[in-house]
Amino acid sequence: MTFGRSDSVAHPFDVDTRVIPIGAARFSAHISGRWNTFGGRAFGGYGLAVCLRALDEVLPSADPLVLSAFFLSAVRPGPAEVSTEVVRVGRRTATGEARLSQENRERLRMVATFADLRTVPKYTALFGAPPKLPRPERCVDLVESTVGPRISVSQRVECRAPAASGWRAGAPTGRPCAEFWMRFREPRDPDLSSLALLVDAAAPAVFELGAAGSTTLELTVHLRAHPTPGWLACRAQTRYVIGGYHEEDFEIWDSDAKLVAQSRQLALLHRMERALE
Amino acid sequence: MTFGRSDSVAHPFDVDTRVIPIGAARFSAHISGRWNTFGGRAFGGYGLAVCLRALDEVLPSADPLVLSAFFLSAVRPGPAEVSTEVVRVGRRTATGEARLSQENRERLRMVATFADLRTVPKYTALFGAPPKLPRPERCVDLVESTVGPRISVSQRVECRAPAASGWRAGAPTGRPCAEFWMRFREPRDPDLSSLALLVDAAAPAVFELGAAGSTTLELTVHLRAHPTPGWLACRAQTRYVIGGYHEEDFEIWDSDAKLVAQSRQLALLHRMERALE
Repeated sequence: MTFGRSDSVAHPFDVDTRVIPIGAARFSAHISGRWNTFGGRAFGGYGLAVCLRALDEVLPSADPLVLSAFFLSAVRPGPAEVSTEVVRVGRRTATGEARLSQENRERLRMVATFADLRTVPKYTALFGAPPKLPRPERCVDLVESTVGPRISVSQRVECRAPAASGWRAGAPTGRPCAEFWMRFREPRDPDLSSLALLVDAAAPAVFELGAAGSTTLELTVHLRAHPTPGWLACRAQTRYVIGGYHEEDFEIWDSDAKLVAQSRQLALLHRMERALE
Repeated sequence: MTFGRSDSVAHPFDVDTRVIPIGAARFSAHISGRWNTFGGRAFGGYGLAVCLRALDEVLPSADPLVLSAFFLSAVRPGPAEVSTEVVRVGRRTATGEARLSQENRERLRMVATFADLRTVPKYTALFGAPPKLPRPERCVDLVESTVGPRISVSQRVECRAPAASGWRAGAPTGRPCAEFWMRFREPRDPDLSSLALLVDAAAPAVFELGAAGSTTLELTVHLRAHPTPGWLACRAQTRYVIGGYHEEDFEIWDSDAKLVAQSRQLALLHRMERALE
């Protein structure tokens, strides 16, 4: 036995989403500070990955297929508890609920259906295509190419786009959409549970409208296929800002040009640094 | 007091979604046969509307803003019970969970966040437009213009499109998208809770691919604004059928050309009547 060895070689994603059984369908977790967004809070997708890991312990099906998470209050670095409930186990799918709490206060509630994505019918028809991007090495690192405050999730997740974002240079483009490559900075192949984290790991598309921040209220993720190792091509888009609320759609395509994840969130703009036209 | 009068004049939507308190946060409901899809089952959106009505009884905020529902097993005409839980009441939003059961078996679980959509910030920016449709009286009634098996929900909800659907004439177009007008056949102005029903009330867009049926696993609805009375302009689209699973996006625009609801579901194809290319 090599004490500590697994920790010293394991990837931050795997270490930081670990859950330990502490009772009937209950787990303890430790929210790391390595996945923070602004304000010292863990970014939303990290909480999802922790909840998925707990559900994976209690549901018989292998793969997360669809999840919906409601963000109730900020998840912060420190101890957490995840309580789970098996809602239904069917022949083909299984559904469960996870509640992540800190200091006895529920922070995140997720319902998810698992299935086996390796044994599916052959029916496939696509009416959309992956983003057309120059090769990653010909793109710029969206964080490294700019100055400004850094958040720890940017040290975990790398985004590379053909050109730097307008908002990062203080000049929002007015177009709330973006296409870019994504991967973990510390090398790790993507899998379904890491896709659920990655759909929420990039800067909100509404930053290109001059938004100073955005808080996710609800996030739904569809996991469509097991990703092939390599860079992930992503597309983020907001089409409707109405009364301060906005949706954001996110697609992730793998290195085989296969759609592997699709998400939509409803979020609330904090404030606008410039007027919308 | 005029016994029964409210029933005799009330709209089927209001009558059939009624909930009666039977205990702490529990309600009884009666699932009517007036909203059936094929197989003698209530269509999904009807169950949503019943759950929303129960949550409206227990949450302090006025308007449903975002909901996610997992369909666990078929809801059928007959008695039902809805148990609710207040998850969080915040300054601006309130979140609750509703579980609809029949014969002591949970059929539908919904989490929803309510807010007040009449007092929102002014921030609005649209990067999409309503469907361009001829006036409703110049369109065809999608049900009345075809022969074939009828389902009771088609007697409640009217859809009018510029041309009859290909699949209804036995010739699927191969394009899983549709734009059409929608309203209740028995006159009733749309409101937020009826929009949650209507996003799921049209035939699935995948019927134009030759699908013989589709079962919703999860449905997320964003309610974006109170609708103005009148016809609703709708857009349904599936872009990705992968391994038998498909998403469907749905938008509803009101008679003021305002986006009032946006939904996405993940569903499973039953079987294909023709091969996909």
